[in-house]
Amino acid sequence: MRTFIIKANEAHTRPDFKLNDLPGTSGRIDVLCRFLNSAFLLSHGFRKNVRVWLLLYGPPEPPKAIRFEGSRLKVRLNPDERSTARLIVKALKAGGGLREPGKEVEVYPGLYVSNRTFEDVVRLTLKNSAIYYLHEEGRPITDIRFPQNVAFVLGDHKGLSPEDEAFLDGIAERVSVGRKSYLASHVVAYINIFLDSLPNPP
Amino acid sequence: MRTFIIKANEAHTRPDFKLNDLPGTSGRIDVLCRFLNSAFLLSHGFRKNVRVWLLLYGPPEPPKAIRFEGSRLKVRLNPDERSTARLIVKALKAGGGLREPGKEVEVYPGLYVSNRTFEDVVRLTLKNSAIYYLHEEGRPITDIRFPQNVAFVLGDHKGLSPEDEAFLDGIAERVSVGRKSYLASHVVAYINIFLDSLPNPP
Repeated sequence: MRTFIIKANEAHTRPDFKLNDLPGTSGRIDVLCRFLNSAFLLSHGFRKNVRVWLLLYGPPEPPKAIRFEGSRLKVRLNPDERSTARLIVKALKAGGGLREPGKEVEVYPGLYVSNRTFEDVVRLTLKNSAIYYLHEEGRPITDIRFPQNVAFVLGDHKGLSPEDEAFLDGIAERVSVGRKSYLASHVVAYINIFLDSLPNPP
Repeated sequence: MRTFIIKANEAHTRPDFKLNDLPGTSGRIDVLCRFLNSAFLLSHGFRKNVRVWLLLYGPPEPPKAIRFEGSRLKVRLNPDERSTARLIVKALKAGGGLREPGKEVEVYPGLYVSNRTFEDVVRLTLKNSAIYYLHEEGRPITDIRFPQNVAFVLGDHKGLSPEDEAFLDGIAERVSVGRKSYLASHVVAYINIFLDSLPNPP
């Protein structure tokens, strides 16, 4: 089981953006669309053993947590950004009236929205997965022996804040896929292919 | 120097498609947009040592070859699909009147269009690069000693034809990034990060 968690500091928490201009109007929901593509899609296939948490912290009602559960997802995830953005719009609409912090609403089978925080989601994930925080100065991913349930935390284009990093200290091991600073979607594509190559892939 | 070549069997060769529905109207130009994203983009950076050839073989005027030259590209390549599709539209417009097979038109500095064929481009690339054909049953990429100039040939979602594969035999070594069939953009993201990790990255 592989979990990917991304904290999107500026991603809008109400569907007030234009599908025709995601980069300019949504607080970079396009980054999240590519993240989902990399996490789930194979050529003519879909990774059922993947869970993705999108943590949206942009205006006007942060946070919103959108969960995609590969083993249960019934709605089709297409590779293009625009159709994936539509799923995020659906989730934000469904989550618009939410007040309770712990309640999760099912948007479609396998797609959920809640007001959970980044910390909530990391703590929840910690119950059954080893957590890794992707960081340029982390331990090389090739040196790590991964257990069967793994979770990876990534920042968006702005990265995680010092407070987020302090929270992760002691909870998540820092791992690195390389020397440069890569786009989140590229890192996830790399991790998936790398994990597939292990003798006992998570 | 890294070259990535993709043959897109159905990608439209005239800009007759809708930016609002690339997957449904363009013969999957969206695949090419994600391919370019993976080939060139870093987080807050750009790979100048990359060249991409898009070989479009869809209706109505195949082939069209669009070349993105990282070392010279002056127009900004943004990460989202839509803005990248606009560059492809510009190139197809500029290439609309082309008749001569060998002539290449500069669309912007670093962006070129021509009527070159897949075979033309592979032969041209062979002059200064070792060519690898990405194939599930190829030699593991981790086993290969790469020279300084490398080129990777990929198929689109439909893959290369038996004729294309026959042409590549003896020209390109088959290499594999893993056991599954991956999306072209994921493979390119993986290759870039993998090559970066080598002692003397191409």
